Formats: sequence, structure tokens, C-alpha cells
Amino acid sequence: MLGARAQGGWRALRRCASLPRAVRLRVREALGAREAADAVRVQGWVRSVRSQKEVLFLHINDGSSLEHLQVVANPSLENRDLTFGSAVEVQGKLVKSPHRKQNMELQAETICVVGPCDIWSFPLKMKERHPLEYVRQFPHLRCRNNTLGSLLRIRSEATAAIHSFFQDNGYVHIHTPIITSNDCEGAGELFQIEASSEVRESAEKTHFFNVPAFLTVSGQLHLEVMAGAFTHVFTFGPTFRAENSQSRRHLAEFYMVEAELSFTESLQDIMQVMEDLFKTVTSTVLSRCPHDVELFHKYVAPAQKTKDRLEQILKNKFVTISYSEAVEILKQASQTFTFKPEWGCDLQTEHEKYLVKHCGEIPVFVINYPYDLKPFYMRDNEDGPQHTVAAVDLLVPGIGELCGGSLREERLPFLESRLQRLGLTDAYQWYLDLRKFGSVPHGGFGMGFERYLQYILGVDNIKDVIPFPRFSHSCLL
Amino acid sequence: MLGARAQGGWRALRRCASLPRAVRLRVREALGAREAADAVRVQGWVRSVRSQKEVLFLHINDGSSLEHLQVVANPSLENRDLTFGSAVEVQGKLVKSPHRKQNMELQAETICVVGPCDIWSFPLKMKERHPLEYVRQFPHLRCRNNTLGSLLRIRSEATAAIHSFFQDNGYVHIHTPIITSNDCEGAGELFQIEASSEVRESAEKTHFFNVPAFLTVSGQLHLEVMAGAFTHVFTFGPTFRAENSQSRRHLAEFYMVEAELSFTESLQDIMQVMEDLFKTVTSTVLSRCPHDVELFHKYVAPAQKTKDRLEQILKNKFVTISYSEAVEILKQASQTFTFKPEWGCDLQTEHEKYLVKHCGEIPVFVINYPYDLKPFYMRDNEDGPQHTVAAVDLLVPGIGELCGGSLREERLPFLESRLQRLGLTDAYQWYLDLRKFGSVPHGGFGMGFERYLQYILGVDNIKDVIPFPRFSHSCLL
Repeated sequence: MLGARAQGGWRALRRCASLPRAVRLRVREALGAREAADAVRVQGWVRSVRSQKEVLFLHINDGSSLEHLQVVANPSLENRDLTFGSAVEVQGKLVKSPHRKQNMELQAETICVVGPCDIWSFPLKMKERHPLEYVRQFPHLRCRNNTLGSLLRIRSEATAAIHSFFQDNGYVHIHTPIITSNDCEGAGELFQIEASSEVRESAEKTHFFNVPAFLTVSGQLHLEVMAGAFTHVFTFGPTFRAENSQSRRHLAEFYMVEAELSFTESLQDIMQVMEDLFKTVTSTVLSRCPHDVELFHKYVAPAQKTKDRLEQILKNKFVTISYSEAVEILKQASQTFTFKPEWGCDLQTEHEKYLVKHCGEIPVFVINYPYDLKPFYMRDNEDGPQHTVAAVDLLVPGIGELCGGSLREERLPFLESRLQRLGLTDAYQWYLDLRKFGSVPHGGFGMGFERYLQYILGVDNIKDVIPFPRFSHSCLL
Repeated sequence: MLGARAQGGWRALRRCASLPRAVRLRVREALGAREAADAVRVQGWVRSVRSQKEVLFLHINDGSSLEHLQVVANPSLENRDLTFGSAVEVQGKLVKSPHRKQNMELQAETICVVGPCDIWSFPLKMKERHPLEYVRQFPHLRCRNNTLGSLLRIRSEATAAIHSFFQDNGYVHIHTPIITSNDCEGAGELFQIEASSEVRESAEKTHFFNVPAFLTVSGQLHLEVMAGAFTHVFTFGPTFRAENSQSRRHLAEFYMVEAELSFTESLQDIMQVMEDLFKTVTSTVLSRCPHDVELFHKYVAPAQKTKDRLEQILKNKFVTISYSEAVEILKQASQTFTFKPEWGCDLQTEHEKYLVKHCGEIPVFVINYPYDLKPFYMRDNEDGPQHTVAAVDLLVPGIGELCGGSLREERLPFLESRLQRLGLTDAYQWYLDLRKFGSVPHGGFGMGFERYLQYILGVDNIKDVIPFPRFSHSCLL
């Protein structure tokens, strides 16, 4: 039994389409219009309905902006399907709004309900500010909530800004492999993959690729290959760790920006790119999505004064301290730590937090880490007795490590002896090979994209900055 | 034993750095300079050395362009490490070149060899045009070959052009999940994932995510969720099929551009975006990388006249035929096919090739496929007796299917009865849910990025358009 209502959307749109055609505008375009216009069509979802005796007010949103477009209509245009959540096409005149809070409004001549909404079972309610924890339960609907709408527009703009930053600076974009046989030397617990038919059939099997294959934890080594031909390369894609997914701080799948530069003269070259990237992308996001960012700063994390702090940060140069200085600062701290600070030991989250606070709650570069703490590819500083490598971490308030980078060991003899001691010479023959054919000083870094978003928006749970939090009540992960 | 040479790169760069600092230019910038300049530094790899009695000629490349920069030097600057493949920094005067083939050249004052090259074991040879099959054996070095250099610059520009196309048209970029519990209803053989420690430990295990998890074959369903809030969304990322990786036509890991639009009025809306995307990206690539594209058209696939054909295609509208018309054309063909064309059967590669030829070796949209051939989410055309859905494939010469798309079934009753017949109601409850809350006519498409590159460049083997072909002689996949 397919009644007229079931056929709804299509027929309704066709019916609208039979009217004299008006210019179709997105809500963002309508709101930003400089002049009134006679025949305008706007499509979107109803965010509020307010029916008065002489006038019907609607707010329409189509995801192009946080702001809704106000529609003013004759009450005769109301019908039972015109509810919160329904999809509509409104045609009419775009005029200057008499209200101070909005530039333009739409005087409706026709309103077609393209798709009705079952408001009783719809989990989002009109004009309610749902907490992030609540909307996280509805991964397929939460993007129709203001906060998640803003988040996803910001995420999209930040992505575009990252691509532009590197393109404007002459970097070649490389799609580094997702499936790899390289396990990146203990960067964390890995995901292993097999063809699903093979998983079903047998435990004693040949691998799909003949060797065990994993999901990438970093594109660094592949980028290093490319930096030997292009001098400036970057990648921006998904990376994976089989981490406990219940954490507020970790994701099994997250995005990483990685860059690699040849002909570096010091670690400073890498740090400069990290700082420029952070500042350029953040400025772009702040200027392109001011209202979306404001929503987070005002309502999601008002206590953190993220906005003021960001503005300060964009104006000043990031601070740099050495790992050895950091340990001294920690040793002299009046605070007692769970892990006693000691030269040669990893900095713990509590240490990182203290350091950032000590430096004034701003981003801090920590450089030159102990040789024995760091992976084989980092460049030997040839110092002593406290032997270090040219590594750098960028620590930021509330998050800890936002970026990590290093100069890479480009000198064949250093690399050979280190790989030999680790018993990795055979596995990294290709990596040694690169050092034989025009090897140059180079280095690079990675920045966790979700942590970046958390930091600039003041979001506590990392699951709230991804489009789809993992959920169990449906087959859609 | 770390001699002076082992320490080479760093010290050499430091030594260069102690000279009065000159402006550092990329090769592309030096070649495009409008005016001579006195103090210029260029860094890169030597592509040729020609030593004459009175003058030493070098060609330097840094990956910023296909063209090399010619360096003219006094023979006294020659040294034994200055060979093909070595990395150098050259400082001197940038002057107008007396040669017709290049705009500028660099008169060297100093030449530092930053990293020597062991030319005897280096698999690339000076001025040799290595076939693609040969360089594919050296995945870590092949990017220093002209053809692969050009390919990767084109790939990078095409990627940027795709992002710009969607951003300029108001689309929101969504990172759809890579790890998913959705198997996209038989889109092909899947990869399944587990934490690697669990793979090692036991066959009888609980899954890392509690349910079986796969690598995505398409972001479509996730995009549909987002199209219910933003009206225009896209994704551009890796997708996976556990296909036989020996094929020239298939990859286990490949990139796909996918877009989803709400408030569509007909399949034509989707086709228009497909055509606009193809033409905009192709025009951008042709204008931004003319020399790189020319290399492919002239030397890699000269017989295919790809260049002339592309220019024709960009000028004309794509052709559209219905599936039913396509079957009629095939039935009337003088050619005999391995698979007899019959209404209701899939089009085979041989059929697609014939159709494209029949239409004049241009891209052809085939629309309205049999209902029973297509997945549950495609929109019922409610026609008969030959029952079809609003699906579209874009076929192109030499490749076959480049894009595929459809209108999606937005009407709850249609979708409910179809999912019920397939026994999928429980699995797709969330998908049905979307149809209850302001569901609108919508549709979308996907385009295989590697196939796109193959098509515009005339590349036969799909492995030659990816940065890292899978290889077995090393741990780097």
C-alpha cells in the first residue's frame, strides 16, 4: 500500500519543479545575499516552527551554515507534515530582515514538504541543546544537531586548509600505503589483515600478500622514499592502532598529517614547518568558520577560554626547551609526580602537562631526546655523555603531544651500525639503500588531526571530533 | 670508522651555509624566473654531467618539475663525487640561457656534493629511458625516474583539483570510516581485520570490536547519512577489495572519490556532477602539468592519441544511452561476443568496449539498469515490463567503467519491502530510520581515482599510477 505520502519526496519536488523556476540558493548564500531577490528557492530541514495567528515562522537549515534562514509565511501554508525535522522546499521573495540578528529572510509563496519527519521517534528535539554524550548514541542522526554540524564543517575546512598549506608551499601530495608489511618498529599494537574468506577457512593459511600485512601506523618511511626525489612531500590520511577503544584519548582509526623535507639544515627547519602549519590552518579555520568555532568556545568548552588563548598563541612564537632542560624543570617542581622525572626516561602525560603549565599554557617544543629512547631512524646528535637524537615533540595544553618529528639519520655508516645492533639489517636493506644514492639531510613530522581539532575547539572526548563514533546497535561501524 | 665522507651531507650543507647566504630557489622557480639574479642557491640531484675542456655542464632536478635546470661551471669545480644521482647544492648567478630550449641557467660559483651516489649499484642510468616494467622493480628508487616523477606530480595535482572542485561547489568533506562492520552487500571480496596479537594467539577469539570488522569498499552509506544534514558531501580516500593482485586492472587498495547530493530531481543531476568533475579536474591537470602530461601522451602511450581525444572530450557533452538501448545496440552488432547480450544480464567488458567504440570512442553514460541486477538501495523506476532502477555507469575507452552512481531509494515503503525480501531488515534498521526523519530524494556516485589517471594518461597497468606498487623483496609494502 504505497499511498501518496509514501511517494512523497519525489512527487513533491516534481510539483515544486512545475512552478516557474526560481533561483536555488543554499541557506548560507541566502543569508549572505547583498540584495533582495524576487524568485528564490531554498531547500533544507525545518529547525523550528512557530505558528501565530497572522504569520507562520520557520527556521530552515541545509548544513551550509550554523545559522538558520528565517521563513515568514501566511498561516494558510501550514500543514500537518510541516514539523520540526521535516524536509522542505520553500519558494518566495528574499528580503532584508527587519530583525537585527539576521541579514535576510524569505517571504514564502509556496512551501512543499518533501519528506515528513516522525517527530515522536526522532531523537533530536526542537530547540533543545543536547549534550554530546546524548547525540553520540545516534551516529546516523547526530549530524543534524548544531554542534556536530559545526564540528563537521570545521573538520572539512581544516582538511582543505591543510591541503592548501602544503600545496602553496610546493609540497607533492603522496598517498602512502594503508596496507603495509612494515610494522614501524613497535609504534604500538597493530591491526593485521587477511581476505575475509581466508579468515573463515583456516588458521593455518598462506597470507593474502604472502607475508603478514598490517594497517599503517605511519607513512613516514614511504614519505622518506619520496623526499629523495621531490624534496617536499606530505600525506594526510588514516592511520591505525589497535588501542583500547573505550578511551577518551585514543582512537583505533585516526587521521595524521605527515610531511618530510630534504636538505634540512637543522631541527629548526622542521619545527618552523610545524609552527607555520599550525598557525596557518588555525587562522584559516577561525576566519572561515567563525560561528562554528564560536559555538564550541562559548557553549562546549566555555571554561577553557580557548578563544583568547588561541589568539595569543597565533601572535607569539612557540617556546622551545631541550629534553634535558625539561627534566631539570620537572626535578625542581614543587609538585610530586607519580613517575619520578629522570634523565633517560620517557616524559609521562603528568610531566607534559606540568611543562606546558610552567611555560604559560602555550605550545612548547621539546627537543633532543635521549638516544636510547628513540627509534633507529632518528639522527644521532653525537653529543655526550648524555647522548641524544635530533627529535622534537610539540606539547600543547590539555592534549599533551600534538606533533612529533625528527631529523632522520641520513648517514649510511651510522644507520648501518644501528640497524646491525638491532638485528634489523635485512628488513631495512631498502632503507640503507636510499643512503647510498644521493642521500641528503632530511627530516619530518606528524600531527594527529583529531588531537589538533580537540585542541583548537576544547573538546574533551576524541570521539566527538570524528564523523562516525563506533557504535554497536547497528551494522554500520 | 666514520670518515669525512660518511659525515658528508651535514657538514657539506653546513659548509655551504657558511657562505654569504643566497636566495634558495626550487628548480621550477629558477626555470620560471623573469629576471637574472646574482646570488641563488639550488639544491637537487644530478641528472647529467657533461665535462668539456673549458666548461662543465650539469643538469639538476629537485622534483619540482620535469625539466632540469642547466648548471654551467668552471671544470675546476668538478670532483669525483659529482656524478649522476649525487645530491648537490649549487650557488651562483641565475642568467638568461643562450639556448632556445630553456629560459634560465645557473652559472655556478660553488658546487657542494651533499650526498654522493654509488653509480655502479644505482639501478637507474644516466639519460636512459627505462621501461615502466623495469623501474617497477625498484619501488624505493623509481620516483627518481622521469616518468614516475611526472606521474606523482600529476597525481598530486589531480588530488588537489578534486578537493577544490568540491570545495568550490559547497560540498562538505567527510572522512568516512576505513574500518567498518558493513560489508556493503557483496561489492566484492573483503579484507577482515583483527588486532595482530589476537591473530597470533587463537582462532577462537572474540573480535577486537566485538563484531567482525572489514576494510571499507565504499563510503556511500556513510555519505548518505551526512547528505541528510549537509545536502552536498564528498569523500576521497582509500577503499579495498581482496582482489587478485597480479591483475593489470585491479588493486587491493585504491582511491575512490565519492559524492552524495540531496534534493536531486533526476538522475541527470548526478550525471551532471560526474561530467563536471571529470572535465574540471582534467582541465586543471592539463593546464598545471602540461609537460608531465605530455611525457605520457608522447612517450608512454603515443599510439593512443590520448591528447587529441581528451581535448575533443572536454569540448563536447558526454553521450547518454539507456541500458535497454545498449542491449539493442549489442544485439545488432556484427561482432560476436563471448557473452551473448541479453536484457537482464550484466554488461561484460567486451560489451562495454563495443558500446564505447560504437559511440565514437568517447565517455558514455549508460542509465536505467535492470532492477534485479542492482543493490537494494537503488531507486525503483516503477516501470515495466522491463523493471529498472535509476542507476548510471560512465564507460570510457580502454578502461570500461570509470564511475558508477544512482539515485537512492528514499521512500520508506519501497525500501522496507525490498530489505524484507532480502532478509536484511535488522542489519539496515538505521538505514530505514533515515527515511523516517525528513527523507529527501538523493543520489550519488563514485569514481575510481586510479582508473581516472589511467584513462587521462593512457597507462596500461594500474600499478604504474600508484606511488608504491606492492613488492616482495623488502619489508616495505
